Amino acid sequence: MWSTAARCSAVRTAPRRGLATLTSSELEKDFAAMLPEAALQRDPSTVEGHRMDWLKQFEGPVLDNDRTPKFVLRPGSTEEVSEILKYCHKHEVPVVPQGGNTGLVGGSVPKRGDEVVLNLARMNKVLDFDDVGGVISCQAGCILADLESYASARGYLMPLDLGASGSCQIGGNLATNAGGIRLVRYGSLRSNVLGLEAVLADGTVLDMMNTLRKDNTGYDLKQLLVGSEGTLGVITGAAIITPPKPVARQVALLALDSFDEVLSTLQKARSCLGEVLSAAEFWDSPSLNMLLDTMPEVVSSRPIEGDHPFYLLIEAAGSDAEHDMAKLERFLDGFEHGVLAMDESQVASLWSIRENLPVALQHRGGRTYKYDVSIPSSLFDELTNLIRKRVASVSEDAFVMQYGHIGDGNVHVNGWSPAFDQDVLDALEDELYAFLTKHRGSISAEHGIGVLKAKKMHISNTESSLALMRSIKNLLDPKNILNPGKVLPEQA
Amino acid sequence: MWSTAARCSAVRTAPRRGLATLTSSELEKDFAAMLPEAALQRDPSTVEGHRMDWLKQFEGPVLDNDRTPKFVLRPGSTEEVSEILKYCHKHEVPVVPQGGNTGLVGGSVPKRGDEVVLNLARMNKVLDFDDVGGVISCQAGCILADLESYASARGYLMPLDLGASGSCQIGGNLATNAGGIRLVRYGSLRSNVLGLEAVLADGTVLDMMNTLRKDNTGYDLKQLLVGSEGTLGVITGAAIITPPKPVARQVALLALDSFDEVLSTLQKARSCLGEVLSAAEFWDSPSLNMLLDTMPEVVSSRPIEGDHPFYLLIEAAGSDAEHDMAKLERFLDGFEHGVLAMDESQVASLWSIRENLPVALQHRGGRTYKYDVSIPSSLFDELTNLIRKRVASVSEDAFVMQYGHIGDGNVHVNGWSPAFDQDVLDALEDELYAFLTKHRGSISAEHGIGVLKAKKMHISNTESSLALMRSIKNLLDPKNILNPGKVLPEQA
Repeated sequence: MWSTAARCSAVRTAPRRGLATLTSSELEKDFAAMLPEAALQRDPSTVEGHRMDWLKQFEGPVLDNDRTPKFVLRPGSTEEVSEILKYCHKHEVPVVPQGGNTGLVGGSVPKRGDEVVLNLARMNKVLDFDDVGGVISCQAGCILADLESYASARGYLMPLDLGASGSCQIGGNLATNAGGIRLVRYGSLRSNVLGLEAVLADGTVLDMMNTLRKDNTGYDLKQLLVGSEGTLGVITGAAIITPPKPVARQVALLALDSFDEVLSTLQKARSCLGEVLSAAEFWDSPSLNMLLDTMPEVVSSRPIEGDHPFYLLIEAAGSDAEHDMAKLERFLDGFEHGVLAMDESQVASLWSIRENLPVALQHRGGRTYKYDVSIPSSLFDELTNLIRKRVASVSEDAFVMQYGHIGDGNVHVNGWSPAFDQDVLDALEDELYAFLTKHRGSISAEHGIGVLKAKKMHISNTESSLALMRSIKNLLDPKNILNPGKVLPEQA
Repeated sequence: MWSTAARCSAVRTAPRRGLATLTSSELEKDFAAMLPEAALQRDPSTVEGHRMDWLKQFEGPVLDNDRTPKFVLRPGSTEEVSEILKYCHKHEVPVVPQGGNTGLVGGSVPKRGDEVVLNLARMNKVLDFDDVGGVISCQAGCILADLESYASARGYLMPLDLGASGSCQIGGNLATNAGGIRLVRYGSLRSNVLGLEAVLADGTVLDMMNTLRKDNTGYDLKQLLVGSEGTLGVITGAAIITPPKPVARQVALLALDSFDEVLSTLQKARSCLGEVLSAAEFWDSPSLNMLLDTMPEVVSSRPIEGDHPFYLLIEAAGSDAEHDMAKLERFLDGFEHGVLAMDESQVASLWSIRENLPVALQHRGGRTYKYDVSIPSSLFDELTNLIRKRVASVSEDAFVMQYGHIGDGNVHVNGWSPAFDQDVLDALEDELYAFLTKHRGSISAEHGIGVLKAKKMHISNTESSLALMRSIKNLLDPKNILNPGKVLPEQA
């Protein structure tokens, strides 16, 4: 998406601090002397895969004079991460920390072209599990789904779940404060982190790996690293709360005729289900129609007869299936159009609609414009309608759809056109950013900033906040070697 | 407690950066010109009250040459706080931000003697309430109990509750990341903060007052201020999640014969009550006996016949009283010694035992040694027994008791002797700190550091963490005017 922009940017930043002076061959030789062979991945196609995001939208330029590293570092321990960063700090070698590389904003791949990719995949051990308190301690490279299986076998679950769980790593989840469908129940990942280990830009190891639920002994440095997208340090380990696994989950899908009905139904769900409400997801008619059209092999028929303007999926999960069901039935009383899943396979089938919306958009071809915004839930439809109207005024083929975590005020607004269309992009972004500015919304509810949104940071942050972020970046990484060009907008 | 030490410390720090050069009269004149009359409190006895903590254990020395301010600042707006700090920053005037002054570690009163007290009491307005999402936005000086009443009238509650709720201010709660009895259910205050407004040392206003549940747009600066005890900025406003108020609460008190039984009962409570478990508090026999002995007018008889080694109070609160009670009864099945509160007055009466333990210690006279530590719950009794044995070896009259938030791994270990006894103090602290060091415990689970524990920070933090905290302090407050001598140990 921005490979052209990146080229420009690499050129533009060059005078400011210069690209690395060491060539790939020189770096490779030094790292080979410093690290075990397993820590150096040199296979060209594998290396290429690590230097590009999974959607193939972000990729740093290949620089001349052997200045783009032809290898990826895969350290096996915190000590190795520390050695690598000490070296990079000394020689001013830029580094891109990388987890499962499943992000959507280009945060985990090179931007300038001279960055060394530091992938945490080999640091994938569970270190400890406290099965009285429900706390998992692990290395940063553990894959989320593996941690989920580990916790699940012991009667617990991870406090987060997201589409990429089979590939994403917990270190990347932490670095981006990943959201997902469990947030409405268990809160943000940030608030479930008890301990953290990270390596700072100069190689200093910050060991904050405790497992205490309460600890008021000074500034909470962990929180500075969580959500910093690899720009302040490399997360190497964490201790995370694992809540007890609910004994059962029940899912209902409702078709609703207006957005006001969506809101009042959500309120009713909150009040009837209370503490067992575990998910509240919604999508609109254009979303479902797009899915039926694009992936008929996955979702072959409408879950509820007729084409309704809105759908709301409500999940209840608690410690007593009978109580949960009683609460759910009380909630469902009075609705005309809905289905209640009767077993786990029906639960999975209802969830697959929501889960496949982004997948279908990806499979559809053409061009998708994805936005991940946070505003009060009551404003979702107003925003989408404004965008829809404006987009319709510039294109006949384009359409706009919305779906998302309505329980958390997080809507994914998506535009689509048969091919890239600058008018559609402009129409969409003009409306969107004006609306977010007016209502103090967030330009990134859960996806983070990366390179994609760095230039829009001012919409969700005041100049004072941005200035303080810059000072902190400068304090922790004075040579700007950690994920340069990500999160903070580059200054002229 | 440390007024002598403070005198020494004031002298010791003098050469390092010097006491303020402006006299109280000069400061008062300048502030009077800058602020409305209501913002200057000059009544001597009121001023004295603000310069001393409520337990009268901490108080900065009165300096000669009119260098101890004879007034307290009580700004009415964020702009006034900003003007005050701009002035203090320029003239290097040290400032102690103060909320309800209910802390236990001397964080909210002067230490050196030349500090101006900046009390937030007049900034006590609720700014907004989102009754769809359940979010309260307010100024920092709002009293916690007032916010609770406000939220309660709208069907919500504050995510925290503590003994001092009638006096403590939400700004102080945030600055100390206050804990309390609701943490086991709703998580830390830190994780319930959605928005924050703060004024930095140089007067810069950081406006981060949004009410979004999800917002991944850069570093979470809010978290740096929360828990920093007024050393990095003055919190002036906040937006906080208010969870829906449970429809009912049920409380049971169990008498248990061993600590192992306490632990297994806690596990059973977690599994039977699941998401409706809303409190798990425990105390030991010496605690109850001390209470019966000290405050017979409040708790006149044993709640359960006989003297049992341990007591566990379990509360269930959910959205369906019948379901909650069914879960509680399933939990209680099989216990021999216990009582179940049958109405709100019995609920209050069982709670009053727990709530009055610290009050009774205060009323008892003699000398109390209070500790607020975090360790895995399974280690509580081992720690207390070690301390008890050691204290018994140096004093016949002293005793040791434990109570606390066992659901969160937070135990309050308290020693008592008829008069101050250095041997008792040494015995207690030797055992305690050795144990915490060995088990990576926290020296302050919820009370914070203040001046009382600044010298013990190394027990719960590595040297790297402390160094980074110092750098951050220096970045945000280079002239060290904000709450000097608190949180971070002063360097030689």
